[in-house]
Amino acid sequence: MSHPQTTFRQTTFTAPSLLLTRRLTVSRTTVHAQLAQLRANGQYDCFKLGWHPIYDDRSRWPAPLHLFWDSDVAKWIEGACYFLVDEYDVEVDAAVRELVAMIRGAQHEDGYLNVHFSVVEPGKRWTNVRDMHEMYNAGHLIEAALAHRQYYRNDLLMDPIEKYISHIHRRFGPGKDQVRAYPGHPEIELALLRCYSATGNTEAYDLARFFLEERGNPTGQDGKHYYDWEMERRDEPRWKRPNSWPMDRSYWYCQAHVPILEQESVEGHAVRAMYLLTAAADLLNISQGSSTSSTGTGNSITPVRPLTAAPDWLAALRRLWSNMVDKKMYLTGGVGAVAQWEGFGIDYFLPQGPDEGGCYAETCASVGVMMLAERLLHADGPEPNGRYADIMELCLYNNVMTAMSADGKAFTYENQLASCEAARSEREDWFVCACCPPNVTRLFGSLGGYLWDYGGTSDVGEGATKEAFVNVHLYTSAEVKFQVGEAEVTFSQKSNWPWEGNILFQLKGAETLDTTIRLRIPAWATQHGHVLTPTPPVGTATLEKGGYLRLDPSYTASNSVFSLDVGAASFAPRYIAPHPYTNQRTLSLARGPIVYCVEDADHPWEENHFKDVGIKRATAVEEEWRVDEKSGEGYFALKTKGWERSPEVLARGEDGVERELVFVPFYFRSNRGGKGQMRVGLRDDGR
Amino acid sequence: MSHPQTTFRQTTFTAPSLLLTRRLTVSRTTVHAQLAQLRANGQYDCFKLGWHPIYDDRSRWPAPLHLFWDSDVAKWIEGACYFLVDEYDVEVDAAVRELVAMIRGAQHEDGYLNVHFSVVEPGKRWTNVRDMHEMYNAGHLIEAALAHRQYYRNDLLMDPIEKYISHIHRRFGPGKDQVRAYPGHPEIELALLRCYSATGNTEAYDLARFFLEERGNPTGQDGKHYYDWEMERRDEPRWKRPNSWPMDRSYWYCQAHVPILEQESVEGHAVRAMYLLTAAADLLNISQGSSTSSTGTGNSITPVRPLTAAPDWLAALRRLWSNMVDKKMYLTGGVGAVAQWEGFGIDYFLPQGPDEGGCYAETCASVGVMMLAERLLHADGPEPNGRYADIMELCLYNNVMTAMSADGKAFTYENQLASCEAARSEREDWFVCACCPPNVTRLFGSLGGYLWDYGGTSDVGEGATKEAFVNVHLYTSAEVKFQVGEAEVTFSQKSNWPWEGNILFQLKGAETLDTTIRLRIPAWATQHGHVLTPTPPVGTATLEKGGYLRLDPSYTASNSVFSLDVGAASFAPRYIAPHPYTNQRTLSLARGPIVYCVEDADHPWEENHFKDVGIKRATAVEEEWRVDEKSGEGYFALKTKGWERSPEVLARGEDGVERELVFVPFYFRSNRGGKGQMRVGLRDDGR
Repeated sequence: MSHPQTTFRQTTFTAPSLLLTRRLTVSRTTVHAQLAQLRANGQYDCFKLGWHPIYDDRSRWPAPLHLFWDSDVAKWIEGACYFLVDEYDVEVDAAVRELVAMIRGAQHEDGYLNVHFSVVEPGKRWTNVRDMHEMYNAGHLIEAALAHRQYYRNDLLMDPIEKYISHIHRRFGPGKDQVRAYPGHPEIELALLRCYSATGNTEAYDLARFFLEERGNPTGQDGKHYYDWEMERRDEPRWKRPNSWPMDRSYWYCQAHVPILEQESVEGHAVRAMYLLTAAADLLNISQGSSTSSTGTGNSITPVRPLTAAPDWLAALRRLWSNMVDKKMYLTGGVGAVAQWEGFGIDYFLPQGPDEGGCYAETCASVGVMMLAERLLHADGPEPNGRYADIMELCLYNNVMTAMSADGKAFTYENQLASCEAARSEREDWFVCACCPPNVTRLFGSLGGYLWDYGGTSDVGEGATKEAFVNVHLYTSAEVKFQVGEAEVTFSQKSNWPWEGNILFQLKGAETLDTTIRLRIPAWATQHGHVLTPTPPVGTATLEKGGYLRLDPSYTASNSVFSLDVGAASFAPRYIAPHPYTNQRTLSLARGPIVYCVEDADHPWEENHFKDVGIKRATAVEEEWRVDEKSGEGYFALKTKGWERSPEVLARGEDGVERELVFVPFYFRSNRGGKGQMRVGLRDDGR
Repeated sequence: MSHPQTTFRQTTFTAPSLLLTRRLTVSRTTVHAQLAQLRANGQYDCFKLGWHPIYDDRSRWPAPLHLFWDSDVAKWIEGACYFLVDEYDVEVDAAVRELVAMIRGAQHEDGYLNVHFSVVEPGKRWTNVRDMHEMYNAGHLIEAALAHRQYYRNDLLMDPIEKYISHIHRRFGPGKDQVRAYPGHPEIELALLRCYSATGNTEAYDLARFFLEERGNPTGQDGKHYYDWEMERRDEPRWKRPNSWPMDRSYWYCQAHVPILEQESVEGHAVRAMYLLTAAADLLNISQGSSTSSTGTGNSITPVRPLTAAPDWLAALRRLWSNMVDKKMYLTGGVGAVAQWEGFGIDYFLPQGPDEGGCYAETCASVGVMMLAERLLHADGPEPNGRYADIMELCLYNNVMTAMSADGKAFTYENQLASCEAARSEREDWFVCACCPPNVTRLFGSLGGYLWDYGGTSDVGEGATKEAFVNVHLYTSAEVKFQVGEAEVTFSQKSNWPWEGNILFQLKGAETLDTTIRLRIPAWATQHGHVLTPTPPVGTATLEKGGYLRLDPSYTASNSVFSLDVGAASFAPRYIAPHPYTNQRTLSLARGPIVYCVEDADHPWEENHFKDVGIKRATAVEEEWRVDEKSGEGYFALKTKGWERSPEVLARGEDGVERELVFVPFYFRSNRGGKGQMRVGLRDDGR
């Protein structure tokens, strides 16, 4: 099987689109700005293994801030390699080469490779797998090595990384001389499985599978939970616990409270949960032979040992996904209601902002949701299920895209749905824990890999008809090229998505193939119907149960050019609201996949973060195409009336002050100055 | 000044009333049931200083469960002594005597007196004042000694307790050989100030004042916060912290994050906050010479040193009270939205139940609110302010009274406004941490002291007119006797409160006095007006700004019998709702001071804890007088229509299923069987 991080190279973004605009910004600005941050803050040189003043800081326990530096460097390398494919850049190329040389130089004889435990606490490696992020850093190094190998076509980074994998593989596992650990911050699992898929490294597969199967075992190590065993070896009382743990032994924080297959609800740190479940889906996909583009650069390696519990893994993934999407996700695709553990609260606990009791909605978490959704599109049954792609798109255009300014230089970590005095709607140049900005880079770098799945079967025997397929998950303007046997297929889409719902498709080079194409009809568009042009003869285009319109080979054979229109009505502004059990009696506006917010930039009279403004579901909404002066970006603004009513006015049952309201896309917030006051969900004032 | 725990003896509950019913139940059943629990669980014998198997349990850190046993015994003694006044009981008397003998026998030579540090950790006394509840236990022993001395008129318990106070006074304070500690669980402060008021013990006053003034000092001990200093002496890392602390150094948990005078909002453990502020109000009252019944048994002792910061203390008390009542109190008078620290959440964070993100509303906390309100009635200006008495009554009839079953044998600790599967609406016989049940006993025992303030001035010089006053805070049927100079005044009230709003008053023995009487008009009754009979001549009855109707001496002189009617309209059922910023878009029913709930006992069709039921503000409500078969208790039930609408039905905008709903007083919940499903606030379906 293959991954978006591998297949993206086959896709080219073509005509102007919001996605292409963002990709160009990241490529030309963000990659450089982030490199400058690495240089300015010390990360760039960390693999030289010199001392940095920040290493003296002992105020953060258990994980000092520099603990993540290995991953900061690795994630930048990975993102940079993705964008070098698009556009060569001499400064970026030189930096990658220098960083790789430093990483190589930092490796120990035995393969070990970690800055903190080489420089700051050399005697303590692997003594705290729960908290010290060694495996997390290793995972990102693996991902960097995969990207590096793909772009540079050499093993300068992969060689030391495979040596490091062997080191870890020797140490951890079910063997007599091994310990049964698994990382406190999952990440390495998905990296190892990508590595296995790309290189066939069976140590990587075995290690990832062990981590996934062993996680949460209550009696794994000498009859004890591994983290208990390890804590006792450190002579640490169980009540000494990280500030992110509300209680002692809060192992649910890192999804280690029970084995994954026994987990009933998605819990704890949201990024860790998404990375872990993405790996679980990879494990399943490898077992099922699920493929993205089976004729692409991905390998079709069968697993070393069959995964007999595959149905249980599928059931767990479906269960945890549904729990998250149905009960623990904001309207914007944000997940993680609780700041303390940067993660999931109880079911339906989704306050809009910190002054209302929560909302974290970390950028990385929604990037993780997109990765998981992409994996589940292949794992969950033979036909793709649009509910995964719908959420993937929701996250992309809202909680992920809102994390970067239009100029590509400022970022968010948390993405509250409502600002307050203590958490204004603002972006920062960088963060001391800098996980989010490079994750946006990595995501946009490999975005082409998320648009569609495709492939074909060319080995069905002499004379048999060859088959090809394309499943289109996301709409934009782009083209993909792939090989099926001798045939070089080109498939393209062209649209003004996310603003308009008509898409033109063209299929080339598939004349010798039976080609099936599936087009996703988003859930928010289904009620309005759709039009395929040319009109398909009866029985040649079927709306599948999973929400995809399937075009049979008979249709694609006679129509190499065709268009889909999900209808202007689907792109009319619509009111959306959270589940009633959230106790959020709010209304928001959406249009197509875009969720909107109000900002004080359009409403200078606002002083209370729109806490006192309500809207009514029956009020007409107008739309206006705006072009932002500073960025030159265009978007539809939405206009409607609202009613400002203080608590006192509400108590008296009065109407309050009628206000003209302007809504802008949530992703575009905080690009136009103002006081940082913003809100997605306004008080629901009924009809 | 004097306290309700002292003055209650002057009040007799007369004709049948809800309050008298509860007092009789506590006296005849609860006191015995709780004694049986103490005997069954080990507390009864703990002052024998033998070993108990529970002492081996090391699973709870820092405070093992038996740490509170001293206070369990002390609180029972205190409550028992209050009820012995009403009705002698040979078993109760014998138990008090035996317990006192055991306590005397447990005291060390140097005055120290604590079970845990005598038996379990003898070397560690006073090494962890933050967590180990030594002072909390001492405080309850002081309160027990005061009640014991008052009833038995001997010092068998007071003697060792005063010796213990001296011991503590020697050790803690600003002196060179002392340490600047203050208890992690405030309680001793209010006990010491009561002790000072009752006995004139200046060590008690000094100690309490030191604790109150020193609390939260960031540099109190050797330039450090005392709890930091103490923690370092124990060689404890700051990240080793109790499970009730979400973060390290969460000193706001016990109101020690900053000095009390600098606290802007009420934070942390709600019971601790209430006990602490009650003591602060006592400190202020002593300084101001504020008095309850200045001619009662209370002393009028002037403070040893003037409290120059008195205005700051008053400002802090007003500020913290308002923050609590306006932003952190449930409709039932419950406080404490967060279970982890049994205390206050952020402003307006008031979910109804654990499955919605919170609600603790501990019984003890509302008992504490009542104590604080009673103190503030004397502290906050010359005229009583009805907002304190309104809240005192709200807590009494709702969050406090709901904590005991009608039969007096079962109790609650938490008082959620909505049940869920994990927290059904049920009561328990007892708790491993048994603070709440004896607090209900103590409160009902001293309840007479909360009804009214009274007194007079008899020292205004030969020949001058003597003056008397009664401020009536709570209505029921009761009589108070007090002395003003030679005159023995008797004042009585008779009513069917809380069901009806007409009260008959009679004043006797005040013929030689100029008597001013103030009658509270509850805030929920003011809009309906009130009628005084006989009609007062112009200028003889004035509604004061604080919400009390002041009857001048000219009126009381000519009307020794009179009646107040706050109006039937005030007792009509009314809809109430939380503040809109709580995001609780719910409606509840109230009638007079009683807040209502729905229970599955009346609605056998209910399966989802009334989560899907809404009511409309314009729907008529009928009332029905019911007499409960089992308990024989009568109450008004309320009946209206509601609409059951599942989330799906709501999403479709449909009407749902119309339901006949029956509401019963929240205090009466869980007395009639059923599945434990209950809710106070139902979905607000508008008009």
